[in-house]
Amino acid sequence: MPSYTAPTKDLQFVLHEVLKVTEADIPGYGELEPDFTNAILEEAGKIASEVMAPLNVVGDREGCRLENGVVRTPPGFKEAFEQIKEGGWPGLDMPEEYGGQNMPYVIGTAVGEMFSAANHSLTMYQGLTHGAASTILAHGTEEQKNTWLPKMVSCEWTGTMNLTEPHCGTDLGLMRTKAEPQADGSYRITGQKIFISSGEHDMAENIVHLVLAKIPGGPEGIKGVSLFIVPKFLVNPDGTLGERNGVSVGKIEEKMGIHGNSTCVMNYDGAVGWLLGQEHKGMRAMFTMMNEARIGVGMQGLSQAEVAYQNALAYARDRLQGRAVTGPKNPDGPADPLIVHPDVRRMLMNQKSFTEGARAFLLWGSTLIDRHVRGGDEAANGLISLLTPVIKGFLTDEGFDLTVQAQQIYGGHGYIEEWGMSQFVRDARIAMIYEGANGVQALDLVGRKLAQDGGKHVMAFFDLVKSFIKENAGQDEAYDRDFIEPLKAASKDLQAAGMYFMAEGMKNPDNALAGSYDFMHMFGHVCLGLMWAQMAKAARAALECGASDAAFYETKLATGRYYMARRLPATAMHLARIQSGADPVMALDADNF
Amino acid sequence: MPSYTAPTKDLQFVLHEVLKVTEADIPGYGELEPDFTNAILEEAGKIASEVMAPLNVVGDREGCRLENGVVRTPPGFKEAFEQIKEGGWPGLDMPEEYGGQNMPYVIGTAVGEMFSAANHSLTMYQGLTHGAASTILAHGTEEQKNTWLPKMVSCEWTGTMNLTEPHCGTDLGLMRTKAEPQADGSYRITGQKIFISSGEHDMAENIVHLVLAKIPGGPEGIKGVSLFIVPKFLVNPDGTLGERNGVSVGKIEEKMGIHGNSTCVMNYDGAVGWLLGQEHKGMRAMFTMMNEARIGVGMQGLSQAEVAYQNALAYARDRLQGRAVTGPKNPDGPADPLIVHPDVRRMLMNQKSFTEGARAFLLWGSTLIDRHVRGGDEAANGLISLLTPVIKGFLTDEGFDLTVQAQQIYGGHGYIEEWGMSQFVRDARIAMIYEGANGVQALDLVGRKLAQDGGKHVMAFFDLVKSFIKENAGQDEAYDRDFIEPLKAASKDLQAAGMYFMAEGMKNPDNALAGSYDFMHMFGHVCLGLMWAQMAKAARAALECGASDAAFYETKLATGRYYMARRLPATAMHLARIQSGADPVMALDADNF
Repeated sequence: MPSYTAPTKDLQFVLHEVLKVTEADIPGYGELEPDFTNAILEEAGKIASEVMAPLNVVGDREGCRLENGVVRTPPGFKEAFEQIKEGGWPGLDMPEEYGGQNMPYVIGTAVGEMFSAANHSLTMYQGLTHGAASTILAHGTEEQKNTWLPKMVSCEWTGTMNLTEPHCGTDLGLMRTKAEPQADGSYRITGQKIFISSGEHDMAENIVHLVLAKIPGGPEGIKGVSLFIVPKFLVNPDGTLGERNGVSVGKIEEKMGIHGNSTCVMNYDGAVGWLLGQEHKGMRAMFTMMNEARIGVGMQGLSQAEVAYQNALAYARDRLQGRAVTGPKNPDGPADPLIVHPDVRRMLMNQKSFTEGARAFLLWGSTLIDRHVRGGDEAANGLISLLTPVIKGFLTDEGFDLTVQAQQIYGGHGYIEEWGMSQFVRDARIAMIYEGANGVQALDLVGRKLAQDGGKHVMAFFDLVKSFIKENAGQDEAYDRDFIEPLKAASKDLQAAGMYFMAEGMKNPDNALAGSYDFMHMFGHVCLGLMWAQMAKAARAALECGASDAAFYETKLATGRYYMARRLPATAMHLARIQSGADPVMALDADNF
Repeated sequence: MPSYTAPTKDLQFVLHEVLKVTEADIPGYGELEPDFTNAILEEAGKIASEVMAPLNVVGDREGCRLENGVVRTPPGFKEAFEQIKEGGWPGLDMPEEYGGQNMPYVIGTAVGEMFSAANHSLTMYQGLTHGAASTILAHGTEEQKNTWLPKMVSCEWTGTMNLTEPHCGTDLGLMRTKAEPQADGSYRITGQKIFISSGEHDMAENIVHLVLAKIPGGPEGIKGVSLFIVPKFLVNPDGTLGERNGVSVGKIEEKMGIHGNSTCVMNYDGAVGWLLGQEHKGMRAMFTMMNEARIGVGMQGLSQAEVAYQNALAYARDRLQGRAVTGPKNPDGPADPLIVHPDVRRMLMNQKSFTEGARAFLLWGSTLIDRHVRGGDEAANGLISLLTPVIKGFLTDEGFDLTVQAQQIYGGHGYIEEWGMSQFVRDARIAMIYEGANGVQALDLVGRKLAQDGGKHVMAFFDLVKSFIKENAGQDEAYDRDFIEPLKAASKDLQAAGMYFMAEGMKNPDNALAGSYDFMHMFGHVCLGLMWAQMAKAARAALECGASDAAFYETKLATGRYYMARRLPATAMHLARIQSGADPVMALDADNF
């Protein structure tokens, strides 16, 4: 059975040596001293590896079962969820007034990575609740916040998001679910929603569904969509649970993976709901949840790649097969371990250089959220808004590919369910699809975010890269050659692609959209290249100061060199594809495929 | 439920307009007139789409069950297999003297693509039998051939290959299974083999296992391995079945996919076996089977990508979601079909340009086999030996990636088992692993095949590309720009990589091996680029002659332009990675990962 070890040391390295959180001018960051964050990460890591990880396989094998309208989660899930609640983990970065611990978002991200890696399906129950609570926090009335948040912050009640219907996912303007206003100010919700993660289960007293629906007579399409709070059980004025609402689970979907999470068809049959935010502005409110969810899904890409890598590494060290071409490395054994073989190394280095780069990227992105939410920094908000589709699309694509590479290291054993690698691959696959398929992320990036606020945010990103290069070039030949030059080249490719979109997209928007996916991947590589240049800088600084753990920093430098030398050259390929324009992509009539 | 349509027209195009089989100077090819091959392909296509494809989902859901030592295949498999046998399909390209139809290998490949696409798991029972029969044909005594082949050619008896043991897969020198010689010339085989596809089932009267084992006292390691014929039931001198042999199934593995094929742990407990080929030369004999199997597995990469593409295309035409950015294409409907969106096009064009290119590549490779086997052409044998790891490694990696892209087009529906796309992905995944994991293919290509016979075969390949370019350049500006120039550039990258290996691999073999995987992919792209240049040439010729089906040829040209513009630029990335050498890959001590 696979195991999971919390990457506490690496998280600490990024927080304190790369991002230097205590020195950052962000409210609440002053208290994030290394000992303090270490205590949190160690404690979270323990729950992740000892409580959640052992249940991951159980969740996959047993799945969720629908029995007489009740969904039974896999054995052990309920007890583990209780432990998570008792530890106060769901409210880690939620406001104190609703029972949270008011920690910065960046700490929530560090803990979230571990929980998702240990048990993707189980963590979703908590993750969706967090997203729903954030939405109520941002758009709810005082009464709504007081009614729902205390119980959601503690996960006594969990949350869901209800967007998709059988005939529409991305194009929500087509939705049919109706919300009919009642005399008492409530609404009656009727319709069917599908693919509702954590839609129904036995781990919470109540479930708070956030449901998109149309109020009859409102504007056509997406402009007539509103958001509603629809609980499983109505809540009495004294806060106790009242009668069952008109919402029920139709079936649990049979999926490729994440069997431990109940993905439900939800039927709303005149269910009582309350408007959240403004009439017909449901998409705006839902985007609070979706933006948070998209970053969380990007994190799942990292998490699955990390846990798969840890196990592949152990296997590669353990399994004896063949001899190193440069001479036996384990001369007393019958064969050398797999890790001596260059192609196995290639796969391991791909994984290691991705997970460490992605970890830094996500934590940096989280500091931008904290800068905005805690410090009101609008520039940081613009930048994270630009980076959100990159985080979601690039990290989940790469996360899946690298999980597949981890599985590959096991050979035939990787294909057998017994070893657990198949589950990591099957679970990782969903992250490329939900919360907006990755093609939609690319469209969001190129079609909306690039031009947002007059292109200010993408210019800010390029300035950031340029400043970093300017400040750090010319001090060390090896650093320039290994890190600065590749970053410069990749960032130049990205800018060239942006220029191409501006020039050719004006003539025909398809010229931009046909290259959007490649652009998203280029952007991701440049971000990870920037992270590696920053991490290498921190590692060099530590070595120069005579840090005691020299091997850690030397390893960091070697891993970074790998990323720069072997992964960043992808940007030139993406640029070549982009510059071939829309013609090759759009040439055929639909009938001629 | 997904469906499958045989790509008869495209197969005919490659056979007759690109490869021009009837004009090729290969024994037996003269009779391959278009009407004749069309009749075969139509008939095979009918069985594939009407009999085999509907059982594909059944195989996945029901799987194989082990009950009291008997393996039950999924409902319907036995009846379908009977129909396949009755049609004489298993012996299509087998010698007439053993009941076959003596058709060229290229026809077997064309039919094989369809069968594998329609039902991967079911086709494996037949495919492994074919490989085992070929091995007996190549290495068996007259008596062995007469005893086993007639029943195997008809698939009344099926075959298996037994290599892997729990502690060794790739490194077969570590194997422990023993073969003790008996006074009557037979051997007693004892040991355990794992991952045995079609190891036990209820669809044939007898199962002929080809088993690698060591004769005690023989040389150490791989040089002491011999190959044995070990039937499930012994055969009486009159050809009737005798007593049960000492071989039994230990369990059926729980796998990620190909549930319809019984992957068995096989226990040999003093089972009676007969030496096939020479003592201690088992690997040589087994390679007859493995080389055939590797090409067959490369074909599975194409097959899964093809059937996944067909269904994704249908979905993209049918599902209404969003509007084309250039203006509504379905103004009377509530939304436009998915296929209007550039990023959906990108995925479809990736799939289409791969499957058509891979089809041509496999059929061309098959003509090389026919040139050798039927015409004794040793140069053709050298070339296909070089290309075999490319076919296996590149086509299965790409086949998997593109099946994942087909699944992606379905959004959330792709993740739900009900739509069948998950099965295609799960089934396609195995092809990257079995018959030598793809890293082993890359090692075979760079570590053995490049230098084989003094590098003669790779030189022959480059000559072939050069001659094609020389003969076809300078006749048409558009053709030069769209096909000749990209092919020239990609082939130059491939040569540069080969030069790098020669220069730097001498100093340190890791410099070559660390780039082997990238080289395999480069090589694959150049092969598909060559195929597209040839197909485009054929399409242009047809259009110049005023072919009635102009749309078919225009589509062919547009699809080829896509491959050249959007996929071939990958060679430069692979070259950059290769030229970064072994250092970034091998820098870390195993302990420092």
